[in-house]
Amino acid sequence: MTRTVLSSATKEVVIGFDVPFVVIGERINPTGRKLLAAEMKVGDYSRVEADALAQIRAGAQMLDVNAGIPMADEPRILAKCIQLVQSLTDAPISIDSSIIEALEAGLAVYKGKALVNSVTGEEEVLERVLPLVAKHGAAVVAISNDETGISEDPDERFQVARKIVERAADFGISHEDVVVDPLIMPVGAMDSAGTSALNLIRRLREELKVNTTCGASNVSFGLPNRHYMNAAFLSMAIGAGMTSAITNPLHEPEMAAVRGADVVMGHDPNCRAWIRAYREPPAEGEEGRGGRRGGRRRRQA
Amino acid sequence: MTRTVLSSATKEVVIGFDVPFVVIGERINPTGRKLLAAEMKVGDYSRVEADALAQIRAGAQMLDVNAGIPMADEPRILAKCIQLVQSLTDAPISIDSSIIEALEAGLAVYKGKALVNSVTGEEEVLERVLPLVAKHGAAVVAISNDETGISEDPDERFQVARKIVERAADFGISHEDVVVDPLIMPVGAMDSAGTSALNLIRRLREELKVNTTCGASNVSFGLPNRHYMNAAFLSMAIGAGMTSAITNPLHEPEMAAVRGADVVMGHDPNCRAWIRAYREPPAEGEEGRGGRRGGRRRRQA
Repeated sequence: MTRTVLSSATKEVVIGFDVPFVVIGERINPTGRKLLAAEMKVGDYSRVEADALAQIRAGAQMLDVNAGIPMADEPRILAKCIQLVQSLTDAPISIDSSIIEALEAGLAVYKGKALVNSVTGEEEVLERVLPLVAKHGAAVVAISNDETGISEDPDERFQVARKIVERAADFGISHEDVVVDPLIMPVGAMDSAGTSALNLIRRLREELKVNTTCGASNVSFGLPNRHYMNAAFLSMAIGAGMTSAITNPLHEPEMAAVRGADVVMGHDPNCRAWIRAYREPPAEGEEGRGGRRGGRRRRQA
Repeated sequence: MTRTVLSSATKEVVIGFDVPFVVIGERINPTGRKLLAAEMKVGDYSRVEADALAQIRAGAQMLDVNAGIPMADEPRILAKCIQLVQSLTDAPISIDSSIIEALEAGLAVYKGKALVNSVTGEEEVLERVLPLVAKHGAAVVAISNDETGISEDPDERFQVARKIVERAADFGISHEDVVVDPLIMPVGAMDSAGTSALNLIRRLREELKVNTTCGASNVSFGLPNRHYMNAAFLSMAIGAGMTSAITNPLHEPEMAAVRGADVVMGHDPNCRAWIRAYREPPAEGEEGRGGRRGGRRRRQA
């Protein structure tokens, strides 16, 4: 049973084949968020704080933290954000950067076992990121593209994933500490994107025995009613064996799809988490919980 | 490629492995609907009319028609309802009764190739229903229980399904005209209900090569936020190979789960059906379409 154990100073979260699906909150990321980028650049982290707390309330078990702002001191800002988020929540963090110095700075201040996001199959990236992951005893997200870009052929994406897992092993990193992102293509761009994704998720699990993750909202790119499309895909991907996703936990269709899939997979004994999220009326002391919002919306529907 | 071809006088609908999922509208059924039962009993079919039209607008490709009213002339009422629904819509019908005389009366007036709902694995039922299905060249829903009731063991339910398929063949009914209902247990009652259901759906498809259906709302019995649980289950069941469901098409989470799963399975080329259902703003001339409601709700969310 493959288990990727991540931790903060005080809490462990397990990504694995026989445990509930892990939602990694994607919101702390200035890409495409001009206001957040401008604030982070001048040292105003109030929105980072709010995003961290809101995502945890909504049900994220981990948080992705990205500080990729053009012309800014990304290593310093990323380290600052990680320290801030760790002071506010006990959720393990996915340290997200394409800049090695930023990953280094983030890992240097991180308390616990982090998920490094990410390594690709490109030689230069493998050679720089994997030693860092090994040195810190971290886990890593492996994105299945290489020097040739992202292949449309799922077999090639599988082979890139296999290469990363093998290279990680050379650095002493177990396959249990490699979480593969098979790169889900938008279903609106290619009719075979969905079935390719499901097959790839199954193969990664059965043949490489690795956990998987994805940026779930990419699947619906360009389509209307995106949250419901993401929701359908998430449930089906969990049915095929996907074990985590980097996504926005503030959207109810997606979170209900994940929680419902956990129940269907038998990973929510006695439906406890489902009932806690959606019982009506909500119990006292749960003001503002994401689950409660879901319950409310249902009553109005 | 297994294909169950149903028809009305003017339209064919195919339940199959490589075509869009078929939603069979469940609403025309007096069970648990006192007002509808009372009206049908005295010959007022206005609600049957409204239910037929609303379900087709919402996206049902077929309609289930049931007239099971205690102390009423079920054969006569069922035949009447079928004639009425066939005069209003071109959707093929699932003729739903546990009374052989009602099935006979329904089939006698039906135009096209009907789906007879249902036969079980009970000897007496097999011996009475299968000849009738064969005589009319109809297809049949096979419910996987027998004299011993509904087994909690999915292997036993599979064996009952196999028996029905074999007995149908003895009567000249192809496995393509047997749509198996594997009897989905509520996930709230048994933690293994979901995985059992998915495994059973896969086995029915791979080993018996049959289409499958289910009463999808049963899965969420006893739980809060039922529509989202049904939605997660439906998407996952389609991912496992389920090809139709008898369900309520008026609920948006379930319909979006079905439409989204069709896209992910590659059964909605260029996402045409998805975009037609959810494009914003809705095109003129689509007043009151189920899909449009979905679009609207999204904008408010």
